[in-house]
Amino acid sequence: MDYCIGVDIGGTNIKAGITDTLGNIVFKDSVPTAVDKSSRGIIADCADLIGTLIIESGLDRNLIKSIGVGCPGTCDAEKGTVIYTPNINLSGVNIRSELGNYFDIPIYLGNDANCAALGEYFALEEKTSNMVFITLGTGIGGGIILGGKLYIGTNGTAAEIGHMVINPHGLKCGCGANGCWEQYASVTALIRMTKEFAERNPQSAIANEIKINGVGGRTAFELMKTGDKGAKEIVDEWIFNVGTGVLNIINILQPEVIVIGGAISKEGETLINPIKEMQKKSVYSQVEKKTTLLTAKLGNDAGLIGSAMLWKESLQ
Amino acid sequence: MDYCIGVDIGGTNIKAGITDTLGNIVFKDSVPTAVDKSSRGIIADCADLIGTLIIESGLDRNLIKSIGVGCPGTCDAEKGTVIYTPNINLSGVNIRSELGNYFDIPIYLGNDANCAALGEYFALEEKTSNMVFITLGTGIGGGIILGGKLYIGTNGTAAEIGHMVINPHGLKCGCGANGCWEQYASVTALIRMTKEFAERNPQSAIANEIKINGVGGRTAFELMKTGDKGAKEIVDEWIFNVGTGVLNIINILQPEVIVIGGAISKEGETLINPIKEMQKKSVYSQVEKKTTLLTAKLGNDAGLIGSAMLWKESLQ
Repeated sequence: MDYCIGVDIGGTNIKAGITDTLGNIVFKDSVPTAVDKSSRGIIADCADLIGTLIIESGLDRNLIKSIGVGCPGTCDAEKGTVIYTPNINLSGVNIRSELGNYFDIPIYLGNDANCAALGEYFALEEKTSNMVFITLGTGIGGGIILGGKLYIGTNGTAAEIGHMVINPHGLKCGCGANGCWEQYASVTALIRMTKEFAERNPQSAIANEIKINGVGGRTAFELMKTGDKGAKEIVDEWIFNVGTGVLNIINILQPEVIVIGGAISKEGETLINPIKEMQKKSVYSQVEKKTTLLTAKLGNDAGLIGSAMLWKESLQ
Repeated sequence: MDYCIGVDIGGTNIKAGITDTLGNIVFKDSVPTAVDKSSRGIIADCADLIGTLIIESGLDRNLIKSIGVGCPGTCDAEKGTVIYTPNINLSGVNIRSELGNYFDIPIYLGNDANCAALGEYFALEEKTSNMVFITLGTGIGGGIILGGKLYIGTNGTAAEIGHMVINPHGLKCGCGANGCWEQYASVTALIRMTKEFAERNPQSAIANEIKINGVGGRTAFELMKTGDKGAKEIVDEWIFNVGTGVLNIINILQPEVIVIGGAISKEGETLINPIKEMQKKSVYSQVEKKTTLLTAKLGNDAGLIGSAMLWKESLQ
């Protein structure tokens, strides 16, 4: 049996895993990302992690057929080069040749959100050729799969769906524009909305909850489930914001499937059903066949698994 | 030499033309669309128009190798069936078999905006594989070409870019949603904005111009060119609205080229340069290779030419 390795480089941790050729993880581990190290140092950390993984797994090294690396920012998948990544010293680095100094097997590179999309794509129960993956987290990232392949646009930077503007005179975004989707529908936005509600309503259950337990992405969801109206108001508005962007993607791309990921997607039907209701009313299409909305299955492992599957995508 | 026929069915006129295999029109004609006729009647009108065209052109009938039909609404290109079209009695009609009763040559069908996109695509001076076409008119339509082929999504209704929401609590759209792009960036929107400005400023040059000559999509553009500040304010705001949607498309798809069409696109650099400025500031991409923004070349003939080129697209 053959195995693959996936490496998911993040701002906090470098995660790596060995998977079978279907993307099932057989072994995984992680190390903190040394953001103060040079590129050589970070590559050496990746190589160490991979080497340790192989040893700990007890697998024969020759059974490992590929390494896939997911990295935030803009990547040139063809050349294997990170063009630009914020926060980590890897901009301009050719991952394929640098990591190739340690391992003599094919090495693939992709953007981290694209890799997560690929992971969820290969994990779909019903196979499809067109899928959009949306990850709701600190910001909003995404990946587009068309015809069974990652669609990265003419310059490798497509699917920056979090920077779709849904309110041109709205909140300033770190990207320079106003009113980007992620300012309204990321988990960061949900937390901001929860705090703002508490400030406006200092006697509310939400304000009380924040005083005791602090605030997180799930604070409003949890209180809503106890019947709290204020919490429901926050969640309704936030899901409406999420749905606005989802419908935009449907109207533009009409993919067969949209998968919503990020930790908050564990809310499942609580999150997805209201968006399905919006879809019934608002999508500009007179056809019966609608985009299927799903929540993600792989959780935090999506990026790692998708990175490991980059060899497979390259065959499509 | 071989020739093709393109038929562009619109709410007002049915236009048809004979082109060479490169899409150059050699002969064209049109008849009013009989919106009160049955589907058989409309198909007969199309067949008459095509027959007359061939006779008037003096071309040998055997040199005509294909007929392409562009129709508003949702089309099943594979089957040749119009699934749904508003205003014209063609919903549910198989154009290929109905028109095939008159002409024994291959017959192709496509959505009208997609056909216009295809016309502009084959007319590009520098060939590309990824292009998005945006037509600014009564509403906003579009077409997406990826890998040299029309991208129509999983159900044939992709590229409804005019119904991308850019203001979720904004103006009601005919589609049922609030704040669709076409409510802010169509020519209809420009005319509304011009009228509203005149109402707010009854002593303005704009108000005076409307009193004398009425209002059209170019009223504000023309007055702006004489140095009128109020007109510039209207145009600036409208172009900003257009640019907002254009940047969204870039952030999602990063196509190599975006072509902006519709009669208003004759404004050329006056329209496109401010959007290029927005692109420099706001697109979320750290790469040098940016989407090229162009205005359309084919004007009202884009749909007709693109319909005639449907056979060519089917070969890609």
